[in-house]
Amino acid sequence: MNSDTASPENTADSPLVDQIIPYLKAGDDHKIDIILSDLHPAEIATLLESLPKALRQKLWRLIPDGVEGDVLSELGEEARGSILVKMADADVVAAAETMAVEDLANVMDELPVHISEALLESLNYDHRKRLEASLAFAEGTAGRLMSTNVISVRKDVSITVVLRYLRRLKPLPHHTDALMVTDDNGIYLGKLPIVDAIAERPETLVADIMLEMADWVRATASDQDVSALFDRRELQSAAVVDEQGKLLGRITVNDVVDVILAKADKSLLALAGLNEEEDLFAPVLPSAKRRAIWLGINLVTVFLAAWVIGRFEEALDKIVALAVLLPIVASMGGIAGSQTLTLTIRGLALSQVTKSNLRWLGNKEMAVGLLNGVAWSIVVAIVTFAWFQDTGIALIIAAAMVLNLIAASLSGVLIPVILVRMAIDPALPGPVILTTVTDIIGFLSFLGLATLFLI
Amino acid sequence: MNSDTASPENTADSPLVDQIIPYLKAGDDHKIDIILSDLHPAEIATLLESLPKALRQKLWRLIPDGVEGDVLSELGEEARGSILVKMADADVVAAAETMAVEDLANVMDELPVHISEALLESLNYDHRKRLEASLAFAEGTAGRLMSTNVISVRKDVSITVVLRYLRRLKPLPHHTDALMVTDDNGIYLGKLPIVDAIAERPETLVADIMLEMADWVRATASDQDVSALFDRRELQSAAVVDEQGKLLGRITVNDVVDVILAKADKSLLALAGLNEEEDLFAPVLPSAKRRAIWLGINLVTVFLAAWVIGRFEEALDKIVALAVLLPIVASMGGIAGSQTLTLTIRGLALSQVTKSNLRWLGNKEMAVGLLNGVAWSIVVAIVTFAWFQDTGIALIIAAAMVLNLIAASLSGVLIPVILVRMAIDPALPGPVILTTVTDIIGFLSFLGLATLFLI
Repeated sequence: MNSDTASPENTADSPLVDQIIPYLKAGDDHKIDIILSDLHPAEIATLLESLPKALRQKLWRLIPDGVEGDVLSELGEEARGSILVKMADADVVAAAETMAVEDLANVMDELPVHISEALLESLNYDHRKRLEASLAFAEGTAGRLMSTNVISVRKDVSITVVLRYLRRLKPLPHHTDALMVTDDNGIYLGKLPIVDAIAERPETLVADIMLEMADWVRATASDQDVSALFDRRELQSAAVVDEQGKLLGRITVNDVVDVILAKADKSLLALAGLNEEEDLFAPVLPSAKRRAIWLGINLVTVFLAAWVIGRFEEALDKIVALAVLLPIVASMGGIAGSQTLTLTIRGLALSQVTKSNLRWLGNKEMAVGLLNGVAWSIVVAIVTFAWFQDTGIALIIAAAMVLNLIAASLSGVLIPVILVRMAIDPALPGPVILTTVTDIIGFLSFLGLATLFLI
Repeated sequence: MNSDTASPENTADSPLVDQIIPYLKAGDDHKIDIILSDLHPAEIATLLESLPKALRQKLWRLIPDGVEGDVLSELGEEARGSILVKMADADVVAAAETMAVEDLANVMDELPVHISEALLESLNYDHRKRLEASLAFAEGTAGRLMSTNVISVRKDVSITVVLRYLRRLKPLPHHTDALMVTDDNGIYLGKLPIVDAIAERPETLVADIMLEMADWVRATASDQDVSALFDRRELQSAAVVDEQGKLLGRITVNDVVDVILAKADKSLLALAGLNEEEDLFAPVLPSAKRRAIWLGINLVTVFLAAWVIGRFEEALDKIVALAVLLPIVASMGGIAGSQTLTLTIRGLALSQVTKSNLRWLGNKEMAVGLLNGVAWSIVVAIVTFAWFQDTGIALIIAAAMVLNLIAASLSGVLIPVILVRMAIDPALPGPVILTTVTDIIGFLSFLGLATLFLI
C-alpha cells in the first residue's frame, strides 16, 4: 500500500501508457496481460486512447473477450470507430452482445447497417425489447441514460416479503440503493430506500415507509435537467417514467457523473471550436479537416476587422505609431469582454441571470468596465507618451480604451442573453462574436478619434 | 405532474428568481415562505446568489433557522461572505452549529477569529473532535471531503447481528450504500455493500462476503485523484484511511459530483482570469479590482507584441497595407494554437499525453498546422490580391501564415507540457503565453518577410 488510492494508476511509478508501450513494442504479451487483468474497462479505454494507431490495434487484440464490450462503450466515439473498422463483423456482434443495453443504444448508430442488423437478430427477445425501448428515446435524454434493469415491488407487501424476493433475485443490479414501488399497471408510486427497508421491523408494509412520488424524471427530460436535479437534491438514483407515469427504468448518480464530465469536457473543447469526440491520436487529414471550419469562421471575422482598419488608410499613412499601437485597444477590450461574457454565460446556465436582474447586471458590468478602462488607460497613456513623445496619441489611445472597455462589458452581457433568446447555446459562438465586436469597436474608436483630432 | 422532473424549478412557469423578486419588493412574506418550504438548501443558495445585495438580505431573513446552516454551506465563498458580515455573531454560531462537519471545516477560515472561537466552544465534545479531525487536512484533500459519520462492523459477526445493529442505529447516515469492516484497532479491512448483506442468508459471516480492501483512499489524496478513481471504477462510496490504514471516514459519489462541478466551473472561469468564487452580484469596486490583474497581465503581453511591430516602422511607413492586414496572421495563429493547446491540456489531465507519445503528438499537430496553414493561406492570398492588387503582399502574407500556424501547433503542444514539468497548472497561464507567442511570431514573420522582400 504505497499509493494514495486503491488504484494501480496512481502509483509513484511512471504512467500506465509509458509502462505498456515498451511491452507492446517488444511483443511481451504476458506482461501486458498482467497489467490488463488489474484494470477496469474505463481504464483500458483511456489507455487505448493514449496510443497511436498501430500500437492501439496491438493492445486491442490482447484485451480479453469478456471485457471488449465494456471497453468499447467507454471509448470516445472517434477512438471507438478506429477500432471497430478493423474488427471482423462477427467479433463486433460478439462484443456488442455483452454491452449494457443503454451503452449499446449509443453505439448502434455508429455501426454499419449490416452489422447492426446482424446484431439485432443475434440478441434474445428480452434483450432486443429493452434495446428498442432505449432506442425509442433521443440521445441526450433520460430515456437513453436510464438502465432498464430495475427492481419494483408492490406497496401492499411486507418488508419480509421484499427481503425474501431480493434474496431470490441476487445478484442485484449494480448500484441498487432503492426499490421502485409500482401499482398493478406498472405506474410509479414511489421508492423504498434499501437502508429504510432493513432498518424497519419485518412486518412493516412497503406502503408505510415508501417515499411517495419521490425523485422521478420523464424519459423525455434532457440529461442536463436530470443532472441539475441530481445535483440540487443530492440524489443517489431516480425513477424514469413515461407520459402516463409508467415506470421505465432508473438513473443512478454514477450515470449523472458521466453526463457532467462529458458536458464539462464539451464546454472546454467547444471554446476552441473542437468536437467532444476528438481523438488525440486521430489521423492528420480528418483532424485538419475538422479544425478547418473554425479557422474559416475566424478568417471571416478577422477580415471584417481588417476592412475596418482599411477605412483609415490615410491616418495610418500619416502616423505610423497608430499601426504599432493598434492591437492594444482591441486586445484589452477582448479580455474585459470575455470576463463579463464568461460570468454571464455561467449565470444563465445556473438560471441566476433572468429578466428581472438583467438590467442590474448590465449596469454593474459597465461600471466595472468603466473603472478598469480608466485605470488601465492611464497606464497605457503614460507608456505611449514615453514611447512616442506625443500627447495627442497618448490621449486618444486612452479615450479609445475607455470606450472599448465599456462597450466590451455591455456586449459581454448582451451577446449571450440575445443568443439564449434565439435558443442558441452561447458557449460556442459567444466568444467569436464578442472578439469581433471588441476588435471592430477598438479599431474604430482608436483610428476614428485619431482621424478626427490628429489629421 | 406537468413538468419533466420532480423539481419545482423545472416547471413551465418563469424562473424562481423572477417569481420571488416581486414578492420581495412587495414584502409578501407569506408567499415567499410557501416557495421556500418547497426548496432544498442548494436551491435556496442559488436563489440568493441570483439576487442583488438588498434583496439578498431581505430573502436571507426569511429563511427558516433550521436550514440556514445548510444554505450557507451551499453558497459560493463570496456570496456567503456578503451574508455573514450582516449577521449577528450569535446567529452565525447558531447556524454554523447545524452544519455538517465537513462543510463547517470549509467555512471556518472565512469566519472572524472571535466567531470561530465562540463556535468551537459552543460545539459538544464529539462534534468538536470530528471538526478538528477534518481541519487537520488541507482543503482539496480526501480528509476534508469525507464525512466522519460512518458505520463500521467487525468481520466475525453474522448478517443477523449486523441487521439488528442497523435497526438500532436508524436513521442511518445519508447515502449509506455499504458498511465498513474494521479490526479491533479500527484498521480498514474492506467493505460490505448493504445489498449484499440483505441478499445473503442471515447466518453468513461478514468475513465471507465482504469485499476485502475494496475502494479506499488516503486522507491526504487530492480530491482530483479521488474523483478520477470514482469515475474510473464507478464507485458509490470509498473508505478514507490514514497512513496506518485506520478508517477515518467515508466519501460518497455525491461528494464527488460537487468536486467535479466545482472543477469544471473553475476551469471555465480561469480561462477568463476569473476566480471560482466570483459572485455575480458582487459590488463594483472589488469586482473591478479582482479583474484588473488579468487585464494588467494582458497589457504587458500586448505591449510586447506592439514593441515587435514598432521594430518595423519603416516597412509600415512605406506600405500601409501591411498595417491593415497585420491582425490576420496573428489571429489565425492564435486560433490554430489554442485548438492544439486545448487538446494537449485535456490529454495531460487524462494522463493520455506522456513522455512516450509526446513526439508523436507534436509531429501530428505540426502536420495538421501545415495542412490548414497551406489551405487557408491560399484563400488569404487570393483575397489579399483582390483587395490590394499586389502579388508580393499576397505571397508574403501566405508564407507568414503557414509559418505561424506550424509554430502555433508546436507551441500548443510544448507550452502545456513545459508548464506541467514546472508543476504549474497549464489551464491558467497556457492561453496567455500561447497568444503572446502567436502574436509575436505572426507579426515577426509577416513584417520581417515584407522588410526582406518588399522594401
